[in-house]
Amino acid sequence: MLKEAIYHRPKDNYAYVCTTDELHIQIRTKKDDLKKVALLHGDPYDWDNKQWKPTTKPMKKSGSDQLFDYWFAAVTPPFKRLRYGFILDDGSETACYTEKGFYPEPPVDDTAYYFAFPFMNHVDIFQAPKWVKNAVWYQIFPERFANGNKENDPENVIPWGSKEPSPVNFFGGDLEGVIQKVPYLKELGISGIYFTPIFKAYSNHKYDTIDYLEIDPQFGTKETLKKLIEVCHKNSIKVMLDAVFNHSGFYFPQFQDVLENGDNSRFKSWFHVHEFPLVTETQQNYDTFAFTPFMPKLNTENPEVKEYLLGVGRYWVKEFDIDGWRLDVANEVDHAFWREFRKEVKAIKPDLYILGEVWHDAMPWLRGDQFDAVMNYPFMTNILNLFSKESISVKEFVEYMTSVIHMYPKNVNEVAFNLVGSHDTARILTLCDEDIERVKQVFTVLLTFIGSPCIYYGDEIGMTGVMDPGCRKCMIWEKENQNRDLFIHVQKLIRLRRDYPLLANDGEFSFVSPGSDDCCLAYLKSDSSKTAVVILNTSNKVVDYTVPVDVSGKTVVNLWDAKVMEVSGRKLEVSLSAKGFAILLLY
Amino acid sequence: MLKEAIYHRPKDNYAYVCTTDELHIQIRTKKDDLKKVALLHGDPYDWDNKQWKPTTKPMKKSGSDQLFDYWFAAVTPPFKRLRYGFILDDGSETACYTEKGFYPEPPVDDTAYYFAFPFMNHVDIFQAPKWVKNAVWYQIFPERFANGNKENDPENVIPWGSKEPSPVNFFGGDLEGVIQKVPYLKELGISGIYFTPIFKAYSNHKYDTIDYLEIDPQFGTKETLKKLIEVCHKNSIKVMLDAVFNHSGFYFPQFQDVLENGDNSRFKSWFHVHEFPLVTETQQNYDTFAFTPFMPKLNTENPEVKEYLLGVGRYWVKEFDIDGWRLDVANEVDHAFWREFRKEVKAIKPDLYILGEVWHDAMPWLRGDQFDAVMNYPFMTNILNLFSKESISVKEFVEYMTSVIHMYPKNVNEVAFNLVGSHDTARILTLCDEDIERVKQVFTVLLTFIGSPCIYYGDEIGMTGVMDPGCRKCMIWEKENQNRDLFIHVQKLIRLRRDYPLLANDGEFSFVSPGSDDCCLAYLKSDSSKTAVVILNTSNKVVDYTVPVDVSGKTVVNLWDAKVMEVSGRKLEVSLSAKGFAILLLY
Repeated sequence: MLKEAIYHRPKDNYAYVCTTDELHIQIRTKKDDLKKVALLHGDPYDWDNKQWKPTTKPMKKSGSDQLFDYWFAAVTPPFKRLRYGFILDDGSETACYTEKGFYPEPPVDDTAYYFAFPFMNHVDIFQAPKWVKNAVWYQIFPERFANGNKENDPENVIPWGSKEPSPVNFFGGDLEGVIQKVPYLKELGISGIYFTPIFKAYSNHKYDTIDYLEIDPQFGTKETLKKLIEVCHKNSIKVMLDAVFNHSGFYFPQFQDVLENGDNSRFKSWFHVHEFPLVTETQQNYDTFAFTPFMPKLNTENPEVKEYLLGVGRYWVKEFDIDGWRLDVANEVDHAFWREFRKEVKAIKPDLYILGEVWHDAMPWLRGDQFDAVMNYPFMTNILNLFSKESISVKEFVEYMTSVIHMYPKNVNEVAFNLVGSHDTARILTLCDEDIERVKQVFTVLLTFIGSPCIYYGDEIGMTGVMDPGCRKCMIWEKENQNRDLFIHVQKLIRLRRDYPLLANDGEFSFVSPGSDDCCLAYLKSDSSKTAVVILNTSNKVVDYTVPVDVSGKTVVNLWDAKVMEVSGRKLEVSLSAKGFAILLLY
Repeated sequence: MLKEAIYHRPKDNYAYVCTTDELHIQIRTKKDDLKKVALLHGDPYDWDNKQWKPTTKPMKKSGSDQLFDYWFAAVTPPFKRLRYGFILDDGSETACYTEKGFYPEPPVDDTAYYFAFPFMNHVDIFQAPKWVKNAVWYQIFPERFANGNKENDPENVIPWGSKEPSPVNFFGGDLEGVIQKVPYLKELGISGIYFTPIFKAYSNHKYDTIDYLEIDPQFGTKETLKKLIEVCHKNSIKVMLDAVFNHSGFYFPQFQDVLENGDNSRFKSWFHVHEFPLVTETQQNYDTFAFTPFMPKLNTENPEVKEYLLGVGRYWVKEFDIDGWRLDVANEVDHAFWREFRKEVKAIKPDLYILGEVWHDAMPWLRGDQFDAVMNYPFMTNILNLFSKESISVKEFVEYMTSVIHMYPKNVNEVAFNLVGSHDTARILTLCDEDIERVKQVFTVLLTFIGSPCIYYGDEIGMTGVMDPGCRKCMIWEKENQNRDLFIHVQKLIRLRRDYPLLANDGEFSFVSPGSDDCCLAYLKSDSSKTAVVILNTSNKVVDYTVPVDVSGKTVVNLWDAKVMEVSGRKLEVSLSAKGFAILLLY
């Protein structure tokens, strides 16, 4: 037994409350090392003749990555508190693993050896809005989605789609355009829009805010936004706005005041200024986003700044009834700020979704007191490596994704914001070398995986584009120039996801463990009565794939053509075309 | 290289800000597996020709426990943000360890592989009050320390020390008694008093609060407390009170109201009631502390309860200028409550000490947003196992304590509340089989270790007592019945700790690594110019111990007799009597 590989530490992904009653426990062990793991658990105060007499519950292997196996058990402590340890069995040796280390037998002289989950307090439970589990997002970069009102076009506007996008050109996209295109979004089937910033700013991307309380006039007015949100809500579409609170824009009046008045500015403590006067070129002497002098970092610890930004957070929720806040560069703002932010906006709208931009391990933001989710870039990286770069095998994909999934609690994974492209990356079709079949596979995974999927505008009709600004082209509205085949594929996936919540986040997810040479990626989603199976053939050849479930006596439906498949015996083979896929339902 | 043993996850004890500028990074590897570990680090946005060009810094092995080595490095990121990985070298193989796994060479195509510490925001730094590092605490159980005012004795009072303590008897100890004994505390040298509860309650221990806003009349009045705190502050003694917010007492009027009026009580949501009417015997139908019907758990998520208890927290700080709150059963109250508590009491008194009662791994409470410290029971357990039960070897002690120390950031360890006994445990002299030499060793470690030590009243004069109520005897005031030898020992240790802050929490702590049969425990505390060495001989024989520091050219002072020791050559041998100790200063 490799003791050094064994890891458990209460809270985070290892011990967390998933529902009011249910405590989830996870432990990590060396891959293929242990035969059995059981959870030894009991009430911290339930002593019997000074003997700690807990019960044991077998743990289930929930996945394996390159180095580790993960084991899982859910328990329902009657008094909402638990002491626990692990009984490890490698076939020849057993050991009891506790907070104080390893023992040949479970210690009985004291409960203090054991791990503790002292009390399952309701308010500390990670609870994202319920609707997010079933949402399908659509990301809109407003300057490039649709121009619905020529009146508010910027002076230097150029005809829609007439040129390649540059960091500085404008095509006139606006909120009225989005309103006019709601029927298109309904046709596609999405249920939430994530808008990149729409507040008054200088650039075309609007991440350099000038006024957090005004709509950029190129996009419309507050009335336009109100109308947009009304129309969306009528069509069961949620609306999420982008909050850029890490930094302001260069032309933010408060920053301009500091530029002008230096040490005498009443706003000097709104930023992190190292010395006066400010130097905005070369080695700037104030904190910025990255090394961008045009994006001065806001001092979110300053009470005035805090109240200003919290006020912004409240304003758009209260006055415009938005459904979500996406928080830009969220990882560089202090945790204390985000805790207050959550409290304030959730007080107004308890089922508001709070999504942070965090590219790396985000556990410290996902403990229930800050964000509901982060943008799942690790998901995107692994998807691209498998389907676009083809730099990893199916086995490696499963291992990497297993690591990612086991880094977070189940209720966190269910609302993760999964994406395969954004205004910050090259477009998926371009990354897939314009191979539509590959892109279809990517969308198939995106829309059947754990999490809350997001489609970057235009990706569903086969738009191309390299890293920004290339990925920010004008949306193509002429049907003849859209890839309708891809559109229909995405539309169908969204409908299936809606009709079969098992394809969204109901049920238990598990990968089918692939061999080193296997070219098929497969995963299951199961509840007590049925199982969905998603299979993707990553190879360029037809493959006959044996469904890794005993199908005897079961009805198997191919969800793609809605046909019941013929089943005889325990095994079912599915023929997958080159770069093909299958989505089956077994019950 | 045993990859499975390697662990690092940003934040908590693995990556934390220790001072405004300094980021501490720790990694865990298999014991004796790696020859060298280096931290590879750079600015997240500092790319050079699309090449990630970080610098490396060797990491120092900071300790080893039974299974692992721990490596440490401190860095000062110029822009307060860091991406980093680890270069691991076992002598035959090197590898780069990142958030995404292991690579033979550091990946250069993206920073996203690397671990991230996105920004060192000041407000998120764990910051305990500065004075705690140098404090020496004294725990007083007020009913048993001194009776200074016969007028407020309870009706059924029995003469001081005339009987063994029982769960229900009263001896008349009070706050006036403490005031009168401040000269004694000054003589001993302590700098802070931790009082078990003093608010109006039914029992002699007062953990069953009736009124959180009144002093128990048996202990005195609010004026007495004011006077006591004034006297203490004049004598540079801090005062910490005990807040029992997890549960109230049975006779708490709000609970009585629920008992009487059941479902119609306006206080019914102050508790966790499962059904009405309440059943207080056998299977009670409301949440309690442990299974104690007389201690109903408070519903700290109820806004009214929250405001009531936060009001209590504020009241005693604001009106009485107390210096600390010790939080009873703190681990069973919700984190959200403690976050608000911290904000509110620190707003009144920023250097207030918040100490939680948590017996197990307490990292989730020590992230800077809740407590400043927890009661260090793991320290106590290991001390007892070595010096009293003699159930572990010196080597095991070092390994266990190394585990404990490496579970927390350095700035957390420095203010940990170290104890070797309390009102909840048997007394140290009793646990040491009344062997005074052992107890002297225990105090020697207690008062020279990392953390903020606490002496349980009477332990310093050799009082005995088994598990409570035995450990709650009346303080012995007749000098002839006190162990003055022990008193002088403790007094001297406190003085040395005050005179040589290196013995408190200045400098770097390290254990001298013992062999399996070594009977001497030794540790060093070093700063740039000097080193303190503490050595304890756990055996019953005289031992000549070679100080594990090159002493050539150094002055070595035996701090116990204040004599400069004779040094010739590089080695220095110290003769330690059976169960003896030495405290040396080298400079």
